[in-house]
Amino acid sequence: MTDRSAEDGSAVPAVAVVDAETPGNVGTIARAMKNFGFEDLLLVDPPALDPDGEAYGYAGQAREDVLPTATETTFEAVVSEYHTVGFTAVTNEDGTSHVRFPYLTPRELAEELQGEGRQTALVFGRERTGLYNEELAELDRVCAIPADPAYPVLNLGQAATIALYELRELALGETHLPDREPSWATPGEVERFHDHFETFLEHIEYPEEKRAKTERLLRRLLGRTTPTGRELTTLRGVMRKAKRTFDRE
Amino acid sequence: MTDRSAEDGSAVPAVAVVDAETPGNVGTIARAMKNFGFEDLLLVDPPALDPDGEAYGYAGQAREDVLPTATETTFEAVVSEYHTVGFTAVTNEDGTSHVRFPYLTPRELAEELQGEGRQTALVFGRERTGLYNEELAELDRVCAIPADPAYPVLNLGQAATIALYELRELALGETHLPDREPSWATPGEVERFHDHFETFLEHIEYPEEKRAKTERLLRRLLGRTTPTGRELTTLRGVMRKAKRTFDRE
Repeated sequence: MTDRSAEDGSAVPAVAVVDAETPGNVGTIARAMKNFGFEDLLLVDPPALDPDGEAYGYAGQAREDVLPTATETTFEAVVSEYHTVGFTAVTNEDGTSHVRFPYLTPRELAEELQGEGRQTALVFGRERTGLYNEELAELDRVCAIPADPAYPVLNLGQAATIALYELRELALGETHLPDREPSWATPGEVERFHDHFETFLEHIEYPEEKRAKTERLLRRLLGRTTPTGRELTTLRGVMRKAKRTFDRE
Repeated sequence: MTDRSAEDGSAVPAVAVVDAETPGNVGTIARAMKNFGFEDLLLVDPPALDPDGEAYGYAGQAREDVLPTATETTFEAVVSEYHTVGFTAVTNEDGTSHVRFPYLTPRELAEELQGEGRQTALVFGRERTGLYNEELAELDRVCAIPADPAYPVLNLGQAATIALYELRELALGETHLPDREPSWATPGEVERFHDHFETFLEHIEYPEEKRAKTERLLRRLLGRTTPTGRELTTLRGVMRKAKRTFDRE
């Protein structure tokens, strides 16, 4: 049991998979862990994980670290060493039974675990039947993924993928997506664009009585979105080029 | 092309999968669609989907409807009939290239599509290489799932699962998770519990000088969470039973 911490000091949760039948699902979970920054995989009664089989085949780059460093353990050890969260598709309706109630959604769980200093284990059950009542009763928290009432039962690998995606901020300082702020056009650039467009309408001898309406239309269109500086520069370039070509004729 | 609408009038997006190689991934996507209320699956150059093969094996209950009613179509038809959103792990850094910029995260996309009246298609690319630049250039919007900079490339089926989970409110009126509000204890119930505990301490002849401190400790503990009515009732039952047993001796 390692003790890795995210930047804010919250412990990065471990992932425990109980009694999985399908090596492919273990591989899928390992890949999602790697995609979202999780490292510690705990396996309770796992299927055989052949390095040439489906678990490694489905794990992507997690075959290099998450899968080979996974720890085989027991349900009792997970319960005694970790603050535990059990995942289930089947909740109780209300507070008359506390085996599967109260529950959190993954997003609520992400908020609750922010700043949680204890090591947490996210516990996923077997493919067909999930976690048994006796198991859930031993776990500290219950988490359920909101889904269609007509078919709320997710595949094990897909459920874990969604959970790890929602909890990624516990494990990742930052994501691969670059900051997008600096590229948006400033209000001043937008105004200069509209000025340019007005001049352009004059230049192409656009009917005078229609100019205000057309300028307003373009203002409304651009007003509904946030253009980038590049978009406006490009459009102004189109108008400049049109003017030059027009002037030459 | 059906025209199903969610309760708020926004159109329920279709899902388009371009040039998938692995039938299992198509099945995984179909299952996620069924879990989150989506129905229309568009397949561009799909692999053969054998009813006894992996696509149907992975689809869960989606084998009954989403998969058999999937439409084989062309990329051009998707572009001309839908408002399109292309999914990619690889974005551009900034506004100097607009092939993969600006992009939305799935959560931002969910907000943007709320109230969108046009039919939208969520477009996913091939396993190894995703959507090509020439394809993304034809699509209206770009969406990227935030992930670990060290390994941001998700498996196709897992990426679609996360996207459909995030967009579920466009397709589902409600989820299977019951309303949890009514079960929480009211402030009055919490106070009655603390009164009961105070009486109980008296009754068990708990050292007088420690009572206030112990009561405060329990108040702080319960104050950090929201107990259900049932939890408090059960704990009060424990105290009542202890008192009865104590009285009998």
